[in-house]
Amino acid sequence: MHQKRVWLRAERRRFLDRVVPNLFPHPRMMNCGWDRGVQNEPVVKRRDLLALIGTIAGSSAMYHAMTSLGFASESAYRGPPRLAGDPRGASVLILGAGLAGMTAALELRKAGYKVQVLEFNNRAGGRNWTIRGGDTVVELGGFTQKCQFEQGLYINPGPWRIPYHHHALLDYCRRLNVTLEPFIQLNHNAYLHATRAFDGAPQRIRSIKADFQGQLSELLAKVTQQGKLDEAITKEDREILLQSLRAWGALDRDYRYNANLISAAFRGYARDPGGGLTAAPVPGEPVALSEILRSRLWRYLQAFSLYNFQTTMFQPVGGMDMIGKAFAREVGDVIRYNAKVTQIRQNGSGVTVSYVDTANPSAVQQATADWCICTIPLSILSQLAIDVSAPLRNAIDALPYAGAVKIGLQFKRRFWEEDEAIYGGISFTDLPIRQISYPSYGFNRAGRGILLGAYLFEGANAYEFTAMTPSERVASAVEFGAMIHPQYKAEFETGVAVAWHRVPFTLGCSGEWTDAGRAQHYRNLCQIDGRIVLAGEHVSHLPAWQEGAILSSLDAIARLHERVVKT
Amino acid sequence: MHQKRVWLRAERRRFLDRVVPNLFPHPRMMNCGWDRGVQNEPVVKRRDLLALIGTIAGSSAMYHAMTSLGFASESAYRGPPRLAGDPRGASVLILGAGLAGMTAALELRKAGYKVQVLEFNNRAGGRNWTIRGGDTVVELGGFTQKCQFEQGLYINPGPWRIPYHHHALLDYCRRLNVTLEPFIQLNHNAYLHATRAFDGAPQRIRSIKADFQGQLSELLAKVTQQGKLDEAITKEDREILLQSLRAWGALDRDYRYNANLISAAFRGYARDPGGGLTAAPVPGEPVALSEILRSRLWRYLQAFSLYNFQTTMFQPVGGMDMIGKAFAREVGDVIRYNAKVTQIRQNGSGVTVSYVDTANPSAVQQATADWCICTIPLSILSQLAIDVSAPLRNAIDALPYAGAVKIGLQFKRRFWEEDEAIYGGISFTDLPIRQISYPSYGFNRAGRGILLGAYLFEGANAYEFTAMTPSERVASAVEFGAMIHPQYKAEFETGVAVAWHRVPFTLGCSGEWTDAGRAQHYRNLCQIDGRIVLAGEHVSHLPAWQEGAILSSLDAIARLHERVVKT
Repeated sequence: MHQKRVWLRAERRRFLDRVVPNLFPHPRMMNCGWDRGVQNEPVVKRRDLLALIGTIAGSSAMYHAMTSLGFASESAYRGPPRLAGDPRGASVLILGAGLAGMTAALELRKAGYKVQVLEFNNRAGGRNWTIRGGDTVVELGGFTQKCQFEQGLYINPGPWRIPYHHHALLDYCRRLNVTLEPFIQLNHNAYLHATRAFDGAPQRIRSIKADFQGQLSELLAKVTQQGKLDEAITKEDREILLQSLRAWGALDRDYRYNANLISAAFRGYARDPGGGLTAAPVPGEPVALSEILRSRLWRYLQAFSLYNFQTTMFQPVGGMDMIGKAFAREVGDVIRYNAKVTQIRQNGSGVTVSYVDTANPSAVQQATADWCICTIPLSILSQLAIDVSAPLRNAIDALPYAGAVKIGLQFKRRFWEEDEAIYGGISFTDLPIRQISYPSYGFNRAGRGILLGAYLFEGANAYEFTAMTPSERVASAVEFGAMIHPQYKAEFETGVAVAWHRVPFTLGCSGEWTDAGRAQHYRNLCQIDGRIVLAGEHVSHLPAWQEGAILSSLDAIARLHERVVKT
Repeated sequence: MHQKRVWLRAERRRFLDRVVPNLFPHPRMMNCGWDRGVQNEPVVKRRDLLALIGTIAGSSAMYHAMTSLGFASESAYRGPPRLAGDPRGASVLILGAGLAGMTAALELRKAGYKVQVLEFNNRAGGRNWTIRGGDTVVELGGFTQKCQFEQGLYINPGPWRIPYHHHALLDYCRRLNVTLEPFIQLNHNAYLHATRAFDGAPQRIRSIKADFQGQLSELLAKVTQQGKLDEAITKEDREILLQSLRAWGALDRDYRYNANLISAAFRGYARDPGGGLTAAPVPGEPVALSEILRSRLWRYLQAFSLYNFQTTMFQPVGGMDMIGKAFAREVGDVIRYNAKVTQIRQNGSGVTVSYVDTANPSAVQQATADWCICTIPLSILSQLAIDVSAPLRNAIDALPYAGAVKIGLQFKRRFWEEDEAIYGGISFTDLPIRQISYPSYGFNRAGRGILLGAYLFEGANAYEFTAMTPSERVASAVEFGAMIHPQYKAEFETGVAVAWHRVPFTLGCSGEWTDAGRAQHYRNLCQIDGRIVLAGEHVSHLPAWQEGAILSSLDAIARLHERVVKT
């Protein structure tokens, strides 16, 4: 068991080192729980029941039983917690009105607690945040941006997409009436771009994907026909394998991937089929495998296949902050805004938190409660005086926070749609901007549009852009982006740039766990320490995801409630 | 050249025979122009310019020049036609108020023609059609269904999705203010189902896809390492190939595809990562390659990659008929509804069309014009008296129409989302229903929902279902669907079934070209015959697609106008 865990850890490190930096919008967002081995299932009795059904009726019946027991889901989430038992007037002070804090406020009040929330910002949501025209964005270093976006257009500087398997977040959206729409992660017609390949010309994802997959299939079909796979595969499977390679790779009758209307049906045409006498289709010439290999564009082909970025992804209609606003409709009455926490004290009977009003920082105020749920990012919390045990203190001090920079650019027209038929999705590049993401709202509409002109994470580029002024960042994003979309220069109007290491309420975009750090500190970070318990994405196996914040909060309040009821 | 064409034709036939029936929602929809070889480009001068720029400045500059010339698009569509020249009061009678007919009406009236339209139905749109609660669906054979769907829910019995490269249709949507939303074709969490594999239990697309791709990559990596590819690939490429296979196949350091957190990041987990102390992720066990091969589930894996079904696809918000209604807002004043054409006569000076009011079929009426654009499906037109030359007459008689059956089912709740986290997309099965498609609207909402419970096309099953009464079709779809979703039985409420061979205004879903048929008849079908020219999806290289209808219409009116102006 321990050996397996060590192996997994080493494996993960290798994978992250080699593959992930090339592949993912944000490595830490892609899974984040790889450091822990197999845990025991807490559901042995139900499992036995299912095994019994399976034995009696065959596995199809078992599947049906699983489904009807609501069991096919791989998530531990089973709806909002049932906090049975009377808290007998207990009070809870929650620090931070992000999704973790507001989830706790919502559920604890429902269970009978007295709840108050202290929030640094003048709005709820925390990193659940949308920037619109008229908004002011303040960063450390004296940078203040006044957003000039046209009304109805926006950018989500923090979380911007929701996977279908984030069951808790989706359930809260359902219960709080947040309307969702698809977020387009994969767009076959978006670009892959490498500065040193194809003379810098961006390539359509569809062509590179079809050509790569087709030529790999051709190679494998060739060795299969040559009998070179005979140890690895039975004679019966050999024939089916060849059939499958023809379908999978768009190969011709001779198992070759060529310029013809078979490959064109996947990679696209030099000339599309049309109507009347105007257009019979014309296939294009595939890109040679060697060229694709050397371009390294294959590094981006699997991004959309990751469990975290698979279809169907969502975004709230109108901006990600619709979720924060929906929570605030429920619990806004117990939130005190503009409250900057300066000190957290506890003793055997309760918690006392000192804070100042951000508009009047000299007058220290105090809030007290029986219990405290602290969702303050560790980047901030590690700088505060807090009464906790050494293991928790060490955990708080140990976690670094990732940097990330997002830049929203407004253009006079949606040229990516009008000129290039790119509707949503992401173009990937090895330029410092890393990716250009096209909006998943307002499709096919005339008029202005905003795209995400850069999303930098980790590495030197993120630090470099963080060091720039916001207007320098925007100007750089326009310069680099113009290498992919020449229309940039003529169409650009205004931009907003957020460098998360400079954002006063988080000083980073998310907790950045290493395997070693998690092994040493994670469980300590989760423990109820006297009368204080932590929650937030940093206290989860889903760092940087809103689902992690909510699940960590639900886990924390369930354990806290158990203690309160037993006390 | 001729040889190449013959080869392409043979190739296509083989591809269609072997691969396509398993792969595609509707084979004829997937491309449909494969029978024709390479045509000459009509844009030689621009090409020369580009070549010049390319020579001088390198291909990156050439790409930029192409983009700024609006030239990167592979479509022939360049905006609505500019019909220069005065038609001097010429009149045009258009038969059929589908998208082809209404496009012609819109553009010809704008160009100065007198336009009238005769339409069989009591609504515009034709196959651009949405069925809602309260609608009546009439089929040949005496079948009348009264749709019982809840208000706000609908099914599109005809076209239901719009590819991003259908430039003309998208342009009309933009100009006519039809709001679009994404249509989800690929959902990684939907199912693949084979009755004789996995004891009938449906498999998640994500797992089969990751396991198939991973194990193919492992096989190819193995022979690469063993030096068995040395003829096919250089030593330098060999190392990059191995790197690419590791990324593409989610292989471990030893180039193996195994149960670990690397493969789980693509195929999904036995247990998802969670928050706090609740859930460290647990990988699941991959399905062996041999099992996947024998299940034939690989047949469905590429459907979403086809150019015609690639992201980003669209549907109009509120139903496909929003497009027909938008056209009708423009040209509805010249449409005469409930007009059944019975005869089409022409002489040197004009066209006379006889028709009856469908409510009063005994009184024959006549409409006359200088010219006629006939969009009546050939399945109907071949039964009418029409004055045309023998080649056109033969073409009209030669084209068979495809059958297709679509069945919409309303359920008490959206169990596919609530229980199974399937939001939009398609599950494929070898059951007669062929596919279940989940709605791409109303995501994550409580309450009732409608899914497409069957989409049968060609083959024995389509005929079998066409022969049934509508209520038998619905009952069968529920029976078969329950083998994939056991919730069907308890949740089903009401359904609607449309068998296109029985639909009075088309007698089939679309023109079904063969290579031989197209070679013999297509050009004849396109020709202006005296004062009559045909338009519609059947007069295009995009049969069954709305884009084909519009492009054929634009081509026909451009040629007609040229003749009118020159006359």
